[in-house]
Order: sequence, then C-alpha cells, then structure tokens
Amino acid sequence: MEIYTDEYYMNEALKQAAYAYEEGEIPIGAVVVCNNRIIAKAYNQTEKLTDVTAHAEMLAITAASDALGAKYLPECTLYVTLEPCAMCAGALFWAQIGGLYFAASDPKRGFLRASPSLLHPKTKVQRGLYADKSTELIQQFFNKLRN
Amino acid sequence: MEIYTDEYYMNEALKQAAYAYEEGEIPIGAVVVCNNRIIAKAYNQTEKLTDVTAHAEMLAITAASDALGAKYLPECTLYVTLEPCAMCAGALFWAQIGGLYFAASDPKRGFLRASPSLLHPKTKVQRGLYADKSTELIQQFFNKLRN
Repeated sequence: MEIYTDEYYMNEALKQAAYAYEEGEIPIGAVVVCNNRIIAKAYNQTEKLTDVTAHAEMLAITAASDALGAKYLPECTLYVTLEPCAMCAGALFWAQIGGLYFAASDPKRGFLRASPSLLHPKTKVQRGLYADKSTELIQQFFNKLRN
Repeated sequence: MEIYTDEYYMNEALKQAAYAYEEGEIPIGAVVVCNNRIIAKAYNQTEKLTDVTAHAEMLAITAASDALGAKYLPECTLYVTLEPCAMCAGALFWAQIGGLYFAASDPKRGFLRASPSLLHPKTKVQRGLYADKSTELIQQFFNKLRN
C-alpha cells in the first residue's frame, strides 16, 4: 500500500481498531497525521482504563498535542474508523483540527445526528473510506460478545 | 457553611476554579459528589497539560471513575462553575451521570446552545447557584489577561 495516501492512514487506524478488538474493547482506532507523518495513534480503551472519556479520538488528540507541544492542531488530520460521537467532535472543535476523515458512519451516536455544527467551521470532513471493513470489525466484536 | 448542601459543593467547585486562576488557567472548577461525599475534584488544566481535552469536567469524570472503579456514574452529581461545553456534555452522557449542577451559563460555548439533548435523558440538570461568583472570577481572569 502506497504511503502518504488516505488509504494508508485509514488502514493504520484500522490496525489500531484491531488492537482494541484483541483487548476486548469496542474496536475503534485513530491516527493523527501532520505533514504526511503519523504523529499519534490510539485505540479505544474505555474498559481497560475504566473511563468513558478514553475514546480513540480523545487519546489521539492528547497524544498529538503531546507530540507537537501544541494545543491546537490546524495542520493535522484525524483518521478514525467510526464517526466521532459528540464528545469527540467537541474535542476536535477545541483542537481546531484541520481535517477529519472517518470510515463508517454512526447513525445512533455520531456527532452528525446530535449537531453537524459541533466541529470547527475550518475542519474539512471526509468519510466513507474502508467503511465496510470498520463496520465488519465492530459487528464481529458484538457478535462475539453475544455468544 | 453547612456541609451536604448544594451550596457547599458548589463552593468547593469554586475553590477549584480559584486554583485554576492562580495557575493561569481559565478559572473553571468541578467536583463530583456521590452519596453526599466528594469523590473527585478538578480544575481546568488545558494550558498546563497542553491539551484541549483537559477541561475540569473531563478530569473530574476520570477521577470519579477512578475513585469508584466504575465507568458509569448514575449515583453521582457533577457540580461545575460553568455550563459544560459539548465535549464535556458528551462525556457526561457516556458516564450516565445522575445529576449536573452548573453555576454560570455559557451562551457561546455551552452545550445547551449546541444541543440540549447531548446529556443522558436520566441526568437531572440544575443551574444558577453562585453564577455571579463564577462569572466574576472568569471576567477577572480575562481582564487580567488583557492588561
């Protein structure tokens, strides 16, 4: 897979989601890209940390700010395997993230249902890449949980 | 001041806001109360931690879950000196917080403007207590910043 492409970055986010899956977490992963470089990777850790705020996006934002030594991330794009919830969209707003690319939509808990204007007006949003792969992993997780 | 009252708890949240003020942070403080006991205290640390997610409410939720060893906080009430933003309201939703009591309203960045339905339907919301004190502290902070 060619590097420096949306496909590459989203695939890296999917790898993070797979780590979450292996650890018994709802499999959602994220990476933050700045100047064609991945500066942060994270996956959902709400169970491990016993903390509802430990979504992949939140951990990725914190890690990206740590990597850059900056609170704001206007030159960065977050790639995440599922549409962010309102909490994560609110965090992306405060971070003034330059871009958001999410794979699968989340009609129930995604921020678009709550309010499309939660993001910063300058944030460029794209979606859909590898949506099937992401959805399949999440469904597989919940199927396993039920059995 | 009598203990086990909303006044007492909100005053403790204001003390947290005062700590933030002293450290050059936008002065917002929060406490989490469970069975009449304060189990978590926090203040805004976005500057110190270089992290937009480090709002008082987020840190308080994480600390409360840590104290209880539980992700969900249906028996808890969060007292906070300013109306939570969408990010924090989203976190309170995931935590299924039993109650939210905020002092001052935030017409610009408060969750009520974004979407009143961001909170969990079971969360009981109250507001207004010590609103003037909270607003005064925040105004004092921004006046100092400008001078």
